[in-house]
Amino acid sequence: MKLCGFDVGLDQPFFLISGPCAIETEKLALETASKLKDMTTRLGIPFIYKSSFDKANRSSHNSARGVGLEAGLRILERVKTEIGVPVLTDVHEDTPMDEVASVVDVLQTPAFLCRQTNFIQMVARTGKPVNIKKGQFLAPWDMGNVVEKARATGNQQIMVCERGYSFGYNNLVSDMRSLAIMRDTQCPVVFDATHSVQLPGGQGNVSGGQREHVPVLARAAVAVGIAGLFMESHPDPANALSDGPNSWPMDRMEELLITLVELDRVIKAQKLLENTL
Amino acid sequence: MKLCGFDVGLDQPFFLISGPCAIETEKLALETASKLKDMTTRLGIPFIYKSSFDKANRSSHNSARGVGLEAGLRILERVKTEIGVPVLTDVHEDTPMDEVASVVDVLQTPAFLCRQTNFIQMVARTGKPVNIKKGQFLAPWDMGNVVEKARATGNQQIMVCERGYSFGYNNLVSDMRSLAIMRDTQCPVVFDATHSVQLPGGQGNVSGGQREHVPVLARAAVAVGIAGLFMESHPDPANALSDGPNSWPMDRMEELLITLVELDRVIKAQKLLENTL
Amino acid sequence: MKLCGFDVGLDQPFFLISGPCAIETEKLALETASKLKDMTTRLGIPFIYKSSFDKANRSSHNSARGVGLEAGLRILERVKTEIGVPVLTDVHEDTPMDEVASVVDVLQTPAFLCRQTNFIQMVARTGKPVNIKKGQFLAPWDMGNVVEKARATGNQQIMVCERGYSFGYNNLVSDMRSLAIMRDTQCPVVFDATHSVQLPGGQGNVSGGQREHVPVLARAAVAVGIAGLFMESHPDPANALSDGPNSWPMDRMEELLITLVELDRVIKAQKLLENTL
Amino acid sequence: MKLCGFDVGLDQPFFLISGPCAIETEKLALETASKLKDMTTRLGIPFIYKSSFDKANRSSHNSARGVGLEAGLRILERVKTEIGVPVLTDVHEDTPMDEVASVVDVLQTPAFLCRQTNFIQMVARTGKPVNIKKGQFLAPWDMGNVVEKARATGNQQIMVCERGYSFGYNNLVSDMRSLAIMRDTQCPVVFDATHSVQLPGGQGNVSGGQREHVPVLARAAVAVGIAGLFMESHPDPANALSDGPNSWPMDRMEELLITLVELDRVIKAQKLLENTL
Repeated sequence: MKLCGFDVGLDQPFFLISGPCAIETEKLALETASKLKDMTTRLGIPFIYKSSFDKANRSSHNSARGVGLEAGLRILERVKTEIGVPVLTDVHEDTPMDEVASVVDVLQTPAFLCRQTNFIQMVARTGKPVNIKKGQFLAPWDMGNVVEKARATGNQQIMVCERGYSFGYNNLVSDMRSLAIMRDTQCPVVFDATHSVQLPGGQGNVSGGQREHVPVLARAAVAVGIAGLFMESHPDPANALSDGPNSWPMDRMEELLITLVELDRVIKAQKLLENTL
Repeated sequence: MKLCGFDVGLDQPFFLISGPCAIETEKLALETASKLKDMTTRLGIPFIYKSSFDKANRSSHNSARGVGLEAGLRILERVKTEIGVPVLTDVHEDTPMDEVASVVDVLQTPAFLCRQTNFIQMVARTGKPVNIKKGQFLAPWDMGNVVEKARATGNQQIMVCERGYSFGYNNLVSDMRSLAIMRDTQCPVVFDATHSVQLPGGQGNVSGGQREHVPVLARAAVAVGIAGLFMESHPDPANALSDGPNSWPMDRMEELLITLVELDRVIKAQKLLENTL
Repeated sequence: MKLCGFDVGLDQPFFLISGPCAIETEKLALETASKLKDMTTRLGIPFIYKSSFDKANRSSHNSARGVGLEAGLRILERVKTEIGVPVLTDVHEDTPMDEVASVVDVLQTPAFLCRQTNFIQMVARTGKPVNIKKGQFLAPWDMGNVVEKARATGNQQIMVCERGYSFGYNNLVSDMRSLAIMRDTQCPVVFDATHSVQLPGGQGNVSGGQREHVPVLARAAVAVGIAGLFMESHPDPANALSDGPNSWPMDRMEELLITLVELDRVIKAQKLLENTL
Repeated sequence: MKLCGFDVGLDQPFFLISGPCAIETEKLALETASKLKDMTTRLGIPFIYKSSFDKANRSSHNSARGVGLEAGLRILERVKTEIGVPVLTDVHEDTPMDEVASVVDVLQTPAFLCRQTNFIQMVARTGKPVNIKKGQFLAPWDMGNVVEKARATGNQQIMVCERGYSFGYNNLVSDMRSLAIMRDTQCPVVFDATHSVQLPGGQGNVSGGQREHVPVLARAAVAVGIAGLFMESHPDPANALSDGPNSWPMDRMEELLITLVELDRVIKAQKLLENTL
């Protein structure tokens, strides 16, 4: 599959979706996009900038929800034209899809909403590539039905994304088998390494996170073999407006990517044995 | 709390929400409402008729989705006026809330959507009583935040509902502790005995179910102590348009309710020990 | 099935297995056995006294492990003859079975050991009734194989016991469906209401517990329909040598039992609907 | 730590523990040991031959349990002297430890028995290196207590092994975070790639398995960073006496190891980022 002008799949280097969870300021957006573009260019990683204009499913209604649609789109547009990178944002049940689709290159649907037929089809109907996050409650083989709903709109640029499965209360587990199982959808499989380390609701009014496990899970997923990696990063996670505890620090990003690129080369240089039994 | 004219709470008999999962025909709706009204009247159980006009989150997009909004509301209105029972229906991210709220007495929100702040507040803003189903991914103590979002709209008639928690793939477990824990929200706690026995996605394109566990879980929940019981029923579950495998057969309903009423009387005749430690 | 001279089964009142988790002193044993005998006699509940001489699977090797085999058996023998109640104790992989079987009336096997074929058969070969706890890792339908191993020794007095299933880390969930499913073994089904509320390993070096959920789960299980109830109790849980956090206080025991007896009567007065579908 | 003459740890190449699950015949043992020795020598992988003389915790008591202690030890001894590789076997609650320790180089304890204090200490007291499998019910941070019990005997050659965690019924999940968390025990961490793909009890009387996920999980674990890899292999898995469904075919072993060695080199060439935050 082609995505934003580059080829994606298990015979291609992984692409990276990254950026701060929420759009905080235009300055932060331009700076982080620029840094991420520089390091991914150096490393030969196809890159898509990600940031959200609205966090519609925060734990508590007192949490910050972002700059809003209008300001958010304006900022993403500047990132796109000034930094020259494709941009992704997540959309919600009440997002004006056409307005968002007129600016961003890739749409992403929240895990909680993966079973809402109307919503998934409304997003897919924009014709934009869609990254569908698998619900924390959905078996990997059940993504086939979700993908079929999306494709029924005519949109063939559908990606599926693992972001952790409910594992008792306030914890998620990343089942690495899921990344292999979801290949059956014929969609590029993406692993979300930063939301997978969330401890949902684990701090009372906000979700906690285990940043130290981001490189652990990212290495594991790349070695399993994925088309793309989603990994939020922030220059100052302790002060991020959203998802700080599970964000990866921008100044440690390149180190991590270097290892991941090497792992990716190793496993993509040969056939995946599970596909040859 | 008052609900549809009767008192609800742990010092009151449990109320029942029941009916076929989907509105199939006007005839079926009137007949089932009438039968359920008769038996609950005989047993002294406050009763709310439930049926859905649209199943928006079916596993597969080929599954039947119901009669649609307009026909559905017309049928519910007839149930209300001709049979003389309050009616409940579930609403979705794109439901015209005012239109629905002009007919039905209680709104219900789907489990998958319990973290969508805008949606929950949009439903609560109708001023109608709302039964909020807890997500299959949400710890019981995390319903406090959800309730707070709903109450922030000024609506104080909020109920919380347990309908099972993700337990590995394609299975749910009903944690009976959850019914006690959610009392901390100060909302009436409802147990959904029919969706709790679903095997989500367990039959390929549709969700399976274990009807034989409906009475098992219903007895357990009533003995824990609940304000209300949600339990879908159908005169012919094998041919139900939706959720047949986990529907309770209408002709076995009264037997089951008789036991539940007796259990309810036993435990509501004394203080709940867990509240006295 | 006959057990210690009384009939057990779904057509009989539930029997109670209770006592302090560990044998602490002879005095405590005699006093608690006497109190429990008095209240169960008043309530018409067949009673078996339970206490352990050795806690062989404590979280940490620094935890107290009990009075040891010799002293323990001597104390249980006095409980038996002086108080006049049957006694149960749990045995381990290196317990001298004949010695224990010469004193106690019922043997109990630990959940962790339910898959050790030699061990289960060694216990069953004593000819004593055996209460086999289901492992925290075992599906209820897989107890059939365990029971078959035990029965292959010729022992037909086998009971199966639910004590919670692993639910993420450091938590257990009590799946009430399990109590119905295990009826297929044709063995009396027992619910362990105090170990089911353990938080395994949840306090660092010792297992934590949620005493407040003991009555919640006990009510639920009795309403599902069980042959027996296991529920440890202690006159001073805060100072118990073992499992204090999940012990039920002796001075609240009779209140709880009164409710449970009433629930038991309700559900055993009629056929269980799940068995009539 | 030194193990069987080679250094193990995160700064060393991973070592491999492999062989058929059960000792079937002397011929099979010698042949498989020889083949595995050849390929690991070619690849520079320190190798320990593994096979069991008794499968003490089979699902059903009708399953084959192996050649027995005496014959098993004689065969392992021949493997050791004729093929020239160290040997490992698993021991049980009633194994004569000294007899086994007089022959084998490494002892392994079953996951179900990880909380049996006497047993763990009895094994550790042999003075042999011990690979302790973590229970399917034990959080990774709770292995610290288990290790402490083993070390209290004076034995410092303790390894800890992840082999999957209970994930609903009849399924296990491999939490890759566990491999990083268990480093806190200061023990070499081993990943068991073949038992982790078991579906416990999933086929009625025997445990099922998902062989196709062996390479998936093995790649993931090596990329996380482990000291050792446990991976059973058999020349003819379909006809293996034990654990066939989750055995890796011997004739696909070298291909798989080649990839794993390359992944191992990549991640061990640099600091693990999670240890530098």
